[in-house]
This record gives sequence, structure tokens and C-alpha cells, in this order.
Amino acid sequence: MEVHVNAAMSIDGKLSTRRREQVPISGPGDFDRVTELRREADGILVGVGTVLADDPQLGVDDKPPGATAHPTRIVVDSTGQTPLDARVLDATAPTVVLTSERLEGQRRDAYADAGAVVYTAGSDRVDLAAGLSTLTEHGIDSVLVEGGGEIIFSLVEAELVDVLSVYIGNTVIGGRDAPTLADGTGFVADFPTFRLDGVARLDDGVVLYWRPET
Amino acid sequence: MEVHVNAAMSIDGKLSTRRREQVPISGPGDFDRVTELRREADGILVGVGTVLADDPQLGVDDKPPGATAHPTRIVVDSTGQTPLDARVLDATAPTVVLTSERLEGQRRDAYADAGAVVYTAGSDRVDLAAGLSTLTEHGIDSVLVEGGGEIIFSLVEAELVDVLSVYIGNTVIGGRDAPTLADGTGFVADFPTFRLDGVARLDDGVVLYWRPET
Repeated sequence: MEVHVNAAMSIDGKLSTRRREQVPISGPGDFDRVTELRREADGILVGVGTVLADDPQLGVDDKPPGATAHPTRIVVDSTGQTPLDARVLDATAPTVVLTSERLEGQRRDAYADAGAVVYTAGSDRVDLAAGLSTLTEHGIDSVLVEGGGEIIFSLVEAELVDVLSVYIGNTVIGGRDAPTLADGTGFVADFPTFRLDGVARLDDGVVLYWRPET
Repeated sequence: MEVHVNAAMSIDGKLSTRRREQVPISGPGDFDRVTELRREADGILVGVGTVLADDPQLGVDDKPPGATAHPTRIVVDSTGQTPLDARVLDATAPTVVLTSERLEGQRRDAYADAGAVVYTAGSDRVDLAAGLSTLTEHGIDSVLVEGGGEIIFSLVEAELVDVLSVYIGNTVIGGRDAPTLADGTGFVADFPTFRLDGVARLDDGVVLYWRPET
């Protein structure tokens, strides 16, 4: 399983405002770059916080010639907060709700009725390593993670990230309560280090490519 | 007055951990770069939060030949939280406490007794534009701002930043409560934009140079 985390942040590391409202951070060049990443991935994965804040569809509009399937949309959602009318549950592509044993049966059935496949990994919260293994068993060999900061932190913490690409746009969002590229509890020791694998100017900003140091 | 903001942050935009403990983010190349910036500046400015968290001396160890004075150390401190035994108040270089009218007389006298010069600008909190004008009147024509995220946000908000250089190191710190490059209340509209003026790989990371768009 190849895990590629991709996100766009402001100069100061924010994904959106303190109100969790999206800000145009990148431009058309980065949009094309992300579209290409989506096309290449078997799955597009987000945390439920991103579904609640942005209600993204996570679709690929124009599949390249020869492509037979849309990438599977995967929501990591330990307790079933994903609304039943979320766009990620629409019929345009397959959807997986990756959840924990805390998800109650009725809600589980509702997601199935909405057309989603529900995979369970972990008791209190999603066990990401086990969840990714389950995805692999079902033929998903690569996922593009599009945020938010909570799931990105969890993936870094679990040492599951293979590539971390970060578009840095030319704005300052600020805010001690605004979501950042990696939120969660944060590290206080044994900080994970990465190798800078590439730097590319794009639109009015820059993309940094990081790979975990081994 | 030329205001150069310089900071080192993690891949995810953090200046330190949620415990406000410093993390080695940069390496010897960046250390030399910052030393050069300090040498060139008339003043080195920090917010009181940085004094409380790190107790920096803000000194320049080895002045270049011909340099006659150490840069003035400037602490922006609206209410007099700077401890009287802070290293920034030692005798190695001049110190300015830039404060507001909220600073009470006894504390004001104590800073003067400690050898600092106290300038007042603003009633409830420091009026940065007025404060920088006061510094200019006293011969300080350039300041290097070394953080933290509160003062950086305030300077961006007040449109007082001329150059923003950000070293991005190769670690993830994470943490929704960890200080970031620009904290404060944050913007929710009219986001300030910058022009990417340079990109330079250094040590295991990269330095981005931003200038405000005019």
C-alpha cells in the first residue's frame, strides 16, 4: 500500500481559517497536479473532519482513456459522523467508510443502504495500519490522502506515510485555532524526520516533496 | 524602517511543540544565515511570549570588523511580563522594552533600573506602527523579527512586514495547540498575499523568501 499525503497550506501552515472555511490557496497549476494524483490513485482518503467542513465529492471528473474505474472514496470516521447526505456518499464512485467498533449497527446499516462499504478496524478509534491492510486486501494498493490535519498527524504518527507533498500558497491565514497540516496531539519528542525529495515552484507558490527518512 | 521577519518552522508550520519547548528545526547553514541577518540589523525584535518560552539572549557573538555596536534587543511586551532576570535584559547589548500605557510605573522603573529603555506606544496593547516609528526616531532603521507567532501575525495584520523569510525544516511537530508561524486571531477574509521572491535549499530543508504584494 502506497500512501501519498497531499495538501495545500498557507505560508504559515494553515489548511483553512479558524472557522474551517476553505481559502483559495493554490492555482490552476496545482489543481492540475492534484487531478493527476487523483487519477493515479486507487483510493482517495480523507478524515471525517474534512467531510464535515468541506463536504467534498472527491471525484475525478475526466478519467483518462483506458481507465475503467473511479478511485474509491474512503472516509476515516470512527463513530459515524459522516452525514448520510454527504457528497462523498453519492453514486458517482465507490465509497468506503473506514470505521471502528464504536460505530453502532443502525448507522452501519444506513451507510450500507447509502451504497457505501463499511470496513471496521480498531476498537475505540480507527486503527489506520489495520484499516490500510483491509483496503489492500480489497484491491486498493494506493491512496491519496487529502486531509485534514488530524488524519495527516495520525498517519505520520503511525509511520504510514510514503510521500508527503505540500503546496505552499502565497497567503497568510494565521490563527492559533486554525487547522494546520498536522494537528492531533503533536509530538514532544522523537520527532519524525523526512528527506526533502523535491522543490518545484508552481502558480504563486511552491510544492515541497518529502519522504520519510528510513 | 525595514522589517524583516525570520523564523524556522517544521514541515507543518510549527515553531515549537505544544509545550512551547524548542525543537532543533534547522542546521548549521541556517544558523549562519540567521547570524548574518542579526549582524545586519539595527534591532532584533521578539514578542514577550518568546522571552517567556525560550529566554533568548538575542546577542551577536562575533561582530564583524568595523561594527561598532551590538543590535538593540527589542521586546514587545504590552503589560510587563518580561522577567527582570531575563537574558534579554543582560548587559551585553542595549535593550528596549516596547510597551503600552498598561505597563504600571513600578514595573516601568524596574526595567529602567535593569538598564533597559522603555518606549510606550498604544493604550491597551502595543501599537506596532507607532512603536516602530519611535524606534526609527531613535536611530533604529531595520529590525529582524525572530518571533513568535503572535507578534508575526500582528505585524502581518498591520501590514508592516517588508520581508518574510521562513526556513522549513525536515521534521513534523504536529499538534493543534502548538505555536505556528502566524497565530493571533487569524484572518477570515481579505487574506494578505505575498510574492515568492526566492527559494533556497539549505541544510535538510529549504528557505522561502516572501515579500508583500503591493
